[in-house]
Amino acid sequence: MCGIFGISGHKEASRLTYFGLYALQHRGQECTGIVTYDGKENHLQVGGGLVHDVFQEKDLSALVGEYAIGHVRYGSAGNRGVRSALPLSVRMAGGLQLAIAHDGKIINAPQLRKELEDEGAIFQSNSDTEIFIHLISHRLRNLSLEEAILDACKKIEGAYSVLILANGKLIALRDPHGFHPLLIGRMPDEKHSYVFASESCAFDLLEAELIRDVLPGEMVVVEKGTEEIVSYRFGEGTPVRQCIFELVYFARPDSTIFGENVYQCRKRMGHTMVREARQEVDCVIPFPDSGIYAALGAAQEAGAPYEHALIRNHYVGRTFIQPTQSMREFGVRVKINPVHSMIQDRKLMVVDDSIVRGTTVRTRVAKFREIGAKEVHFRVSSPPVLHPCCYGVDFPSSEELVAVHHSPEELRQELGLDSLHYLSIEGLMSTVSCPNSYCAACFTGVYPTALPIAE
Amino acid sequence: MCGIFGISGHKEASRLTYFGLYALQHRGQECTGIVTYDGKENHLQVGGGLVHDVFQEKDLSALVGEYAIGHVRYGSAGNRGVRSALPLSVRMAGGLQLAIAHDGKIINAPQLRKELEDEGAIFQSNSDTEIFIHLISHRLRNLSLEEAILDACKKIEGAYSVLILANGKLIALRDPHGFHPLLIGRMPDEKHSYVFASESCAFDLLEAELIRDVLPGEMVVVEKGTEEIVSYRFGEGTPVRQCIFELVYFARPDSTIFGENVYQCRKRMGHTMVREARQEVDCVIPFPDSGIYAALGAAQEAGAPYEHALIRNHYVGRTFIQPTQSMREFGVRVKINPVHSMIQDRKLMVVDDSIVRGTTVRTRVAKFREIGAKEVHFRVSSPPVLHPCCYGVDFPSSEELVAVHHSPEELRQELGLDSLHYLSIEGLMSTVSCPNSYCAACFTGVYPTALPIAE
Amino acid sequence: MCGIFGISGHKEASRLTYFGLYALQHRGQECTGIVTYDGKENHLQVGGGLVHDVFQEKDLSALVGEYAIGHVRYGSAGNRGVRSALPLSVRMAGGLQLAIAHDGKIINAPQLRKELEDEGAIFQSNSDTEIFIHLISHRLRNLSLEEAILDACKKIEGAYSVLILANGKLIALRDPHGFHPLLIGRMPDEKHSYVFASESCAFDLLEAELIRDVLPGEMVVVEKGTEEIVSYRFGEGTPVRQCIFELVYFARPDSTIFGENVYQCRKRMGHTMVREARQEVDCVIPFPDSGIYAALGAAQEAGAPYEHALIRNHYVGRTFIQPTQSMREFGVRVKINPVHSMIQDRKLMVVDDSIVRGTTVRTRVAKFREIGAKEVHFRVSSPPVLHPCCYGVDFPSSEELVAVHHSPEELRQELGLDSLHYLSIEGLMSTVSCPNSYCAACFTGVYPTALPIAE
Amino acid sequence: MCGIFGISGHKEASRLTYFGLYALQHRGQECTGIVTYDGKENHLQVGGGLVHDVFQEKDLSALVGEYAIGHVRYGSAGNRGVRSALPLSVRMAGGLQLAIAHDGKIINAPQLRKELEDEGAIFQSNSDTEIFIHLISHRLRNLSLEEAILDACKKIEGAYSVLILANGKLIALRDPHGFHPLLIGRMPDEKHSYVFASESCAFDLLEAELIRDVLPGEMVVVEKGTEEIVSYRFGEGTPVRQCIFELVYFARPDSTIFGENVYQCRKRMGHTMVREARQEVDCVIPFPDSGIYAALGAAQEAGAPYEHALIRNHYVGRTFIQPTQSMREFGVRVKINPVHSMIQDRKLMVVDDSIVRGTTVRTRVAKFREIGAKEVHFRVSSPPVLHPCCYGVDFPSSEELVAVHHSPEELRQELGLDSLHYLSIEGLMSTVSCPNSYCAACFTGVYPTALPIAE
Repeated sequence: MCGIFGISGHKEASRLTYFGLYALQHRGQECTGIVTYDGKENHLQVGGGLVHDVFQEKDLSALVGEYAIGHVRYGSAGNRGVRSALPLSVRMAGGLQLAIAHDGKIINAPQLRKELEDEGAIFQSNSDTEIFIHLISHRLRNLSLEEAILDACKKIEGAYSVLILANGKLIALRDPHGFHPLLIGRMPDEKHSYVFASESCAFDLLEAELIRDVLPGEMVVVEKGTEEIVSYRFGEGTPVRQCIFELVYFARPDSTIFGENVYQCRKRMGHTMVREARQEVDCVIPFPDSGIYAALGAAQEAGAPYEHALIRNHYVGRTFIQPTQSMREFGVRVKINPVHSMIQDRKLMVVDDSIVRGTTVRTRVAKFREIGAKEVHFRVSSPPVLHPCCYGVDFPSSEELVAVHHSPEELRQELGLDSLHYLSIEGLMSTVSCPNSYCAACFTGVYPTALPIAE
Repeated sequence: MCGIFGISGHKEASRLTYFGLYALQHRGQECTGIVTYDGKENHLQVGGGLVHDVFQEKDLSALVGEYAIGHVRYGSAGNRGVRSALPLSVRMAGGLQLAIAHDGKIINAPQLRKELEDEGAIFQSNSDTEIFIHLISHRLRNLSLEEAILDACKKIEGAYSVLILANGKLIALRDPHGFHPLLIGRMPDEKHSYVFASESCAFDLLEAELIRDVLPGEMVVVEKGTEEIVSYRFGEGTPVRQCIFELVYFARPDSTIFGENVYQCRKRMGHTMVREARQEVDCVIPFPDSGIYAALGAAQEAGAPYEHALIRNHYVGRTFIQPTQSMREFGVRVKINPVHSMIQDRKLMVVDDSIVRGTTVRTRVAKFREIGAKEVHFRVSSPPVLHPCCYGVDFPSSEELVAVHHSPEELRQELGLDSLHYLSIEGLMSTVSCPNSYCAACFTGVYPTALPIAE
Repeated sequence: MCGIFGISGHKEASRLTYFGLYALQHRGQECTGIVTYDGKENHLQVGGGLVHDVFQEKDLSALVGEYAIGHVRYGSAGNRGVRSALPLSVRMAGGLQLAIAHDGKIINAPQLRKELEDEGAIFQSNSDTEIFIHLISHRLRNLSLEEAILDACKKIEGAYSVLILANGKLIALRDPHGFHPLLIGRMPDEKHSYVFASESCAFDLLEAELIRDVLPGEMVVVEKGTEEIVSYRFGEGTPVRQCIFELVYFARPDSTIFGENVYQCRKRMGHTMVREARQEVDCVIPFPDSGIYAALGAAQEAGAPYEHALIRNHYVGRTFIQPTQSMREFGVRVKINPVHSMIQDRKLMVVDDSIVRGTTVRTRVAKFREIGAKEVHFRVSSPPVLHPCCYGVDFPSSEELVAVHHSPEELRQELGLDSLHYLSIEGLMSTVSCPNSYCAACFTGVYPTALPIAE
Repeated sequence: MCGIFGISGHKEASRLTYFGLYALQHRGQECTGIVTYDGKENHLQVGGGLVHDVFQEKDLSALVGEYAIGHVRYGSAGNRGVRSALPLSVRMAGGLQLAIAHDGKIINAPQLRKELEDEGAIFQSNSDTEIFIHLISHRLRNLSLEEAILDACKKIEGAYSVLILANGKLIALRDPHGFHPLLIGRMPDEKHSYVFASESCAFDLLEAELIRDVLPGEMVVVEKGTEEIVSYRFGEGTPVRQCIFELVYFARPDSTIFGENVYQCRKRMGHTMVREARQEVDCVIPFPDSGIYAALGAAQEAGAPYEHALIRNHYVGRTFIQPTQSMREFGVRVKINPVHSMIQDRKLMVVDDSIVRGTTVRTRVAKFREIGAKEVHFRVSSPPVLHPCCYGVDFPSSEELVAVHHSPEELRQELGLDSLHYLSIEGLMSTVSCPNSYCAACFTGVYPTALPIAE
């Protein structure tokens, strides 16, 4: 997953993009970049690391212009190094300078790349984003920019929330399934200055007003000097399939996406999860920070006190010196330490949003037992993750997904739990307003698109 | 404040000290250092920054020996640069190598320093720690090490939790008032290996067993090769005066110090605070992370749901680029963003552990009003901070302490609150087992020692 | 200017490329990069800074494969940031991976870029190198790789010494004028392992044998598994015009390029320069290090002792804190300090290879006068630089070129010299074996190609 | 060896000290520090690394005051880390703040340290400098500062050039043998502003006027507000024994120390060396940079051309990636590459200032042979180093000193030289004005002091 941000018609475009990316940092920590357009040409800076490491005051000053887009990227295999950092900024026919930032994954990338290469296209990286550019470029000979983009979208299958900066236009688009979020906002007291972001928390930081989602299958164009945005629709007839995992895990709880307040949605998951498998306990304890919001709902539903009894060490670096073998599970323990008195002799309901590999759960439950927990009831605020995602969520391989190889009962026994309950898929869907408009393929295996063909 | 850690008779002394300091990092982020003793001589490394920045694998390998003490220091004016980093390691009469790590503040440091200087002593820094060393050194001509330390303590007034490494002895001592915490533990399955730490959370990380507090006015000596520790008492007749602010704010919630579980103690402060000023509200919201534990107690006492509705951005660096003037209070907002739906149209009880300068409270309350909170009731889980601390807590000056210049009612009006209540001093004391054994001078102005004479 | 290096069929290809670039570091200090080919795919790493800062041991280990090319780049306006770092590595038709490193400047780049853009090509940077790739790619549908490259070269005017890595072939080519150097060598005891470098000093470091220059208008192909190289010629009829400034200034004195030993050639410049304007002096002093070799020749011709009387401070960083105004010309003085006793009361012949802006000369001559030099005779081992270079040498603009605005006599007076002599163009050409085969446009204004048309 | 610098009564004291240390950087690259005095108290900053890495603009601004001393230190065993960085700044009796910077080595340090420890002194490092401070401090009860220092000097045997900053006095002293240099200068147009430096090159950079050496056994006191300096003499009757190795190797060639211009002195060594062992050769080649100045003299005496035929790569970092075993002597070759045409078929006289371990000579001579040198005659501009230095020059141990184990003839054979000649001790002494006033113990074994007693 990635985070994208864009702004039009603002004197401090690069600086506000920097802040927007700051708020979206949780969506990607490996690389980041900003492109601005100053009325004549694009200015680009990319780099590896966090937003506040990559950009210094002087960098933002060099990124001149009133239009900007930015990107934060999650690292994954095959994307090593800054060459893959986004946004891309290129020159094409007619000297047009076009910059693009993309969140998502194109299903038919290998086929498209091959077709384009056969037509003479050259690829400098493995990113799907170059495919977008070539498809647009090839169409610009006969079509306007807007037409070219819409026509390109016909060729592309998969997930894409995209921001494009070209010749003073800021263009936002979202694939017809609407897999990943993208929102429209406006800067306060600046009618001409629109902002776009993956999540609304970026608007809060800028004190921008949230207007609405870019719709699935919508292209929004902000043209220089006009107050109005122009909307184009494409991909009619495609069912909306927004990523439910954004609500379960990925988005920040203070964001609103897909029309849902993430915080409240996660609380509802907690409520529902408890209703599905009631259990008398002394307290409800989340795995911080991912389990906090479902645990709040669970505690309220269960009538048991919420206890924030796993304490995070906020000074843990990305890497740390490992202890020798005799110290077990140090990596888990150095980050989180339990408050013994909240665990000893007590019946616990422990909550997290998902179980992926199961290793952290195993370590922590063992610790609870060692401290003297009377009962440990584990509750997961989503169904078991059983299937890979083709749309951009970077789950581990099937071999590593613990739910693929263990039934809930097997897992309960292996983890030494008194009970284990996953929120049912029906329960999960009951927490959102439009259950039919979500992709839950990672839980159900029902993919809304054809599956990708291996390269 | 500072954090100190020590270990005896363990093959991985430097590595375990590194981990111990990792767990105590919240007590000081400016400098850190470790001294080891290899049976012949001391090895020292100090540096500026966080533990995981200062020490690399090769550094720990160079810190050979089975005895170690370490230190993390909070920066304060007059302690600039690594020259002030602790521990100190010195050579003195008879070639004795002595290392010392110190948490606290000596009241009569200026007088002692002057006396020592007049006797020919030389000071290389402003740290109180050098005073300790000179007092000990001057006594070693006629006294044993233990006697020299005890005799030195007679001269020193103020707060000191100290670890000393000398000639294969690891010595821990705590001033007779017992201002700051210091605990004894033992490594699992290693009867000879004792550990000492400012807080018990360091023992948890090492899976060490917590034995007990070093007592106020106690010196504990661990000698090489013996399983038993030897205890000496001094300062008889001095009343115990442990720092209540450690429980209110400074210690980690997963620690046990002064015989109190910090987490539970803070919850009791929340309960009591609510009982003192009941208020019907829709929910209870903490300032994260400092207000979380009192808020949990408050919510349970108030019968209102606890909501974790202020979301921290975990990617905020120590410094960040500032926005231009038009973006108000950016520093507060970039770190914490409120979940609007939890605030709009609701009656809030907002909780923090203290109000020092008042600026953050002002900004956040204004934001709550802007979002549309119906009522905002602020609750503080400690009394107003009115007096400076002479024992090591680095409060701002009186001019900056908002409670010095504003009565609670004035402050309520200025902050735009519907109500404001500070936990009373009696209420605070009701949350601990031995109310008489605490120093609450920052709240009451009643200092357990003579006041320091300005240099 | 840039430096390029390539190697075929060697197990330590990336490591040897690293060393080769180390030896070529004087040709470019801003960016560097290496691409390797492992039989299946390319591996790339680029970065900003010196070779020994960009590559660490682990990086070289990750650059697997027996084929490699590398690049060091001199920074110039419009090439900001690592996005412009070379080599480029791309994927094109048929999945072909092609990497390219380029030294030089294409005259007709704007026209070619426009033509290519109009055909749908996309450019990610301002570098000329992308033009090469697109021209090749467009021809690969109908032509073999070798044919495609040769055909592409027909379109390109200007200076290019290029290394290409594609499908296990290592290809070197040099434009028909042969502006910049490129040499062929072979690793000792490894008949299959050819090396290519901008200068022979890179071969010395690797103990590789220098075979010969890649010829102007030659393409050399090293195919995997064969011992022989295959040579193709192109651009017949084009006159050879090698850059004389490489011999005057750019190349390292221990290199052999264009069949000339740079050290000896520079000494001959010194001899000739003295013969053209004899002057009795007490000693000959070079500006270090650029003037050393001409000064050696000058001293031998003049029969006066060579004195190394300007001492470099080798610890000067790239940037340093500036003194306040009262300290004049600090930047010049901090790097070089004169030995007073060699200057006072003496008649000096001072030698440098060129005068570009004139500021350093002015400062140093004033210092000599202040110290008490009796006479100062300045000798320049090349003619006045009067014209911009279109082939890759980054001279300052005409406004800054001191010789454009001052006759030698004017400059002599302004600099306070007793005499000033520039080596004549005839004298310069007398120092090389084939005077007709050089470009001296920066001195003469006679350009061997059409002039570039502004974009 | 170390470099020291001090300045009195100048508004930009810290900045000028920074520049002074910049010019003395060759005397020590491991640590550096500056202390200033602002009329009330001292300000200190020390750090590991080069001067331009340790001090930033803001650091110099924080080092307020018109008096400053600074230090650059050469790293040696037992001085690891910044705790040993100088200057030291301490507080002592009467609140006196005293800072000290020291170049040299105290012979009787172990005895003095033991005596001081027995009197209660505490040592925080292994540096000799702490001994100075304690000796002074102990005397301050009864004596004035000047008397105390002079009395302390009676106890100290060995080498010390020292700068002291105390209560607005800047004090310079040099041991009675005068082992290491220290000079007095004055800032231009600032009669009150005196400067002190280890070498005169620091004055050149500041455009300060060189007045004279601090004399062996002289203490010079600059008092605030007075234009005159006060001189005290001590150690009468001690023979002057200045370190001849300063002239041979350590000092910068553009410095004047001990009344000798280093450049000219080294040229005379070259002349004399050639006169002692004449040899017809085609050219004279120095090992750069250490052999350059003797080679200039040698070439003039021999009537053969000087050739700068070993080329330094100026981009070599302090550490670099090592090649695999197959590349011999890479460390030597990466730094220096020979110009083949100057070596092949030629009779060479190769010059360096000393042979210490012999490894570099061996590698380079082998290379000359491989290139095809007809004859290689090695000339060393000092006698064989046979004895350790007790006064601060950090020679390798006897086992590593190649001359200890090899007669010149043996070494000639082993290195494959046609001839080898070391400058004789008489010849060396003939190059200085006062031959009797030098210590040449490293060559002769005649030590001017008692030998140090091992600790």
